[in-house]
Amino acid sequence: MSTPTVVTVGADMFAEAVEGQAVDVERVDWRPPMPGTEADLAAVATDPRRPEANRRAVEAMLGVTAHLVDVAPASEVLGLERGQFLHAGPPIAWEQASGPLRGALMGGAALEGLVDDPEDAVALFESGSNVSLEPCHHRSAVGPMAGVVTPSMWMWVLEDRATGRRTYCSLNEGLGKVLRYGAYSDEVLTRLRWMGDVLGPLLQAAVRGTAEATDVTGILTQMLQMGDEAHNRNRAGTLMLLRDLSPAMVLSQEKGGFEGKDVAEVLRFVGGNDHFFLNLAMPACKLALDAARDVPGSTMVVAMARNGTEFGIQVSGTGDQWFTGPAQVAEGLFLGDYGPEDANPDIGDSAITETAGIGGFAMATAPAIVRLVGGSVPDALATTRRMHEITLAANPRWSVPVLEFQGTPTGIDVSKVCRTGVLPQINTGMAGAVAGVGQVGAGLVTPPAEIFPQALAALADAARAANG
Amino acid sequence: MSTPTVVTVGADMFAEAVEGQAVDVERVDWRPPMPGTEADLAAVATDPRRPEANRRAVEAMLGVTAHLVDVAPASEVLGLERGQFLHAGPPIAWEQASGPLRGALMGGAALEGLVDDPEDAVALFESGSNVSLEPCHHRSAVGPMAGVVTPSMWMWVLEDRATGRRTYCSLNEGLGKVLRYGAYSDEVLTRLRWMGDVLGPLLQAAVRGTAEATDVTGILTQMLQMGDEAHNRNRAGTLMLLRDLSPAMVLSQEKGGFEGKDVAEVLRFVGGNDHFFLNLAMPACKLALDAARDVPGSTMVVAMARNGTEFGIQVSGTGDQWFTGPAQVAEGLFLGDYGPEDANPDIGDSAITETAGIGGFAMATAPAIVRLVGGSVPDALATTRRMHEITLAANPRWSVPVLEFQGTPTGIDVSKVCRTGVLPQINTGMAGAVAGVGQVGAGLVTPPAEIFPQALAALADAARAANG
Repeated sequence: MSTPTVVTVGADMFAEAVEGQAVDVERVDWRPPMPGTEADLAAVATDPRRPEANRRAVEAMLGVTAHLVDVAPASEVLGLERGQFLHAGPPIAWEQASGPLRGALMGGAALEGLVDDPEDAVALFESGSNVSLEPCHHRSAVGPMAGVVTPSMWMWVLEDRATGRRTYCSLNEGLGKVLRYGAYSDEVLTRLRWMGDVLGPLLQAAVRGTAEATDVTGILTQMLQMGDEAHNRNRAGTLMLLRDLSPAMVLSQEKGGFEGKDVAEVLRFVGGNDHFFLNLAMPACKLALDAARDVPGSTMVVAMARNGTEFGIQVSGTGDQWFTGPAQVAEGLFLGDYGPEDANPDIGDSAITETAGIGGFAMATAPAIVRLVGGSVPDALATTRRMHEITLAANPRWSVPVLEFQGTPTGIDVSKVCRTGVLPQINTGMAGAVAGVGQVGAGLVTPPAEIFPQALAALADAARAANG
Repeated sequence: MSTPTVVTVGADMFAEAVEGQAVDVERVDWRPPMPGTEADLAAVATDPRRPEANRRAVEAMLGVTAHLVDVAPASEVLGLERGQFLHAGPPIAWEQASGPLRGALMGGAALEGLVDDPEDAVALFESGSNVSLEPCHHRSAVGPMAGVVTPSMWMWVLEDRATGRRTYCSLNEGLGKVLRYGAYSDEVLTRLRWMGDVLGPLLQAAVRGTAEATDVTGILTQMLQMGDEAHNRNRAGTLMLLRDLSPAMVLSQEKGGFEGKDVAEVLRFVGGNDHFFLNLAMPACKLALDAARDVPGSTMVVAMARNGTEFGIQVSGTGDQWFTGPAQVAEGLFLGDYGPEDANPDIGDSAITETAGIGGFAMATAPAIVRLVGGSVPDALATTRRMHEITLAANPRWSVPVLEFQGTPTGIDVSKVCRTGVLPQINTGMAGAVAGVGQVGAGLVTPPAEIFPQALAALADAARAANG
């Protein structure tokens, strides 16, 4: 005798009706494709280039090992000139910029001596003369939150030795009132000047003085076994970085003319900032994803980035085109008395971590993160499993012990997102909506759904063109 | 209509027979009490002192915060004199000592200059003149594996500031061919001399120069959120210790006359040894458990320790009495060509971690450990859940994120062990059975079952005496 079982697909109503009659129900998570995508899905699904193109994109991405090879000012390594500002996300003008991006630009202008008082920078940016804005992504860089980079800021330099390709990211300032969250008070600028005068040069000496370049991809492997998902938990990563660089820091004290108190202060600053490693995780992810760019026919997402106003993605098979929609406000937990009304829409290049299969995609390995971004532990486990529905591979180097060492869900497939309606899950810090405020919380967010059908339409057009 | 369900208790045969008929079965994990314990279980269960005694023991244990207050030679802080040797586990004589304990004693004798060649120490220990053996536990200390402590070895000093009580542990040498696994080659002795000449003094300067004493109990809290279970995974703990001590190390370079290359070497040595923090986790656990000693009527285990020949426990309600039985050989994974026939029976005071509710009891939070000690990820999760069946409390400071932040199973109850037959689960390194070999693997082991009925009988006798 066997008990009757019903398999239900789609809407919960059926399952609940049958369960109400005490029948075992096996629910299959299925949703209809996103509206209006049927024809484009068919065009992409029948594109004969697609399977091999996605295989190549995934293989290229997984083949990259990011080594930390230098630390140097943006003026040197990015050729950034006075008045040039990089920012997170897709392209944007001052007029459309949100509060935290404006605040960071104002602070950056003061840091570079373009204005004495950050408040005076508003007129400068409104005039548009002698200043220009450009996405970090357009210069092989990534920036967390506002992502503002100015010429004097020191950058991590990561390299894929197989190809010589490099990516860049600024140094992490810590949490709270910091430039990347849109704060620009004296405290913020004083810290940035110390980072330029002491932190950057000492890290440069340490990186250049460390015989074996730090394997950032390998540290990410370890972090995922140590409760970090490498977007909003980077504690173990930060500590491993300290472990790798501190001996050379000590030795460069003698060689480089640094004082013991400076070395001790750098050790305390880095050790006191659990997010310090984020700015290495991000360019490591970008380095891997850049290797997967420009494969004709590939439906793999190679960048997700937000400028505080718009959320944009780039896809391997459609070159440098951005597909954009309005950035959403995260749901999560707030600092102090802040609430949802204080939060700016989603901002930052840090969603490059989710694009590479960590961050929100790897929350199963970092369940303690729910105390920071909200949600429950079962949610965190379910999220990682769900992201496998919209990705092309399980990363063999980045495995999740609690899911029996399954690789992280890697390589978001635009067609899978459109077919299932499952959106990428991002976890994120939340900036105050008003320039100057800084961080107000952390939470969970998704891209605006409509950017995936947009990208799919462009992929379908390309498929039709390629296949006659 | 509801489906028939059967609840089965005990032997699997019934459940399987019913399941064979396609009936849903709810299995309840129940086993009969250990044979011959019924009368003693009744005596202890009806001891009116027991509930309050166990509550007091648990409360005392959970109230302890271990601070790192000093590093100093055993001769100074333990009053250990030339020819005196401490060792792991319950008391033992040279004649009964296993290979790894003999090897460590031989190396220790050479380190102290009692003999020139470790091989010559065999005659010295056989003669018994001018040498004595004593358990670490009898001097408020704990030692991993062989646990041999000699007067010149530098010790961590931990303090419970509420009571001034202190515990001690030697410095961790790393893995492989090391004294605590019974190796005593020149390489081993050279490393120990460097630890005495450089590592110990520099750590002393760092600890004494750090304004706020390191909260070892608090680091353990963080470790459990970072994939460490603090017995065989201490990676995050080691890195947090480096973070806390490295600024003072750098500053003491100038003050203490240390050279930069020595500081760098210490940073590399500690950073290269993922187990370095074990020797702080252990005395922190002992400090907590010592607070729970000597509560009349309490059935809580306050020490589990092995000398390589016997496994012994001490119980709160029975003072300093050891209950001992033959140490078991662990099952697990082996290094290189070693196999089960090369392994010595279980050895070391490190089971103090399980006694305090971490180590094997917290494997759910450190699933990556199955790659070191064997078993599966589901086993690791199930083990932590199962240990709650034999413990008195969930530790509110040590929580396991993946089990929705449930506290670790804390305070082994002798009567629960006897009533359920569930034995404490320990994970452990495995020493080679032959003196001089060193580590051969790591695995899982339990105490010999018979020591719990022994302890129960003593508790029952005490209960009968106390209650007339």
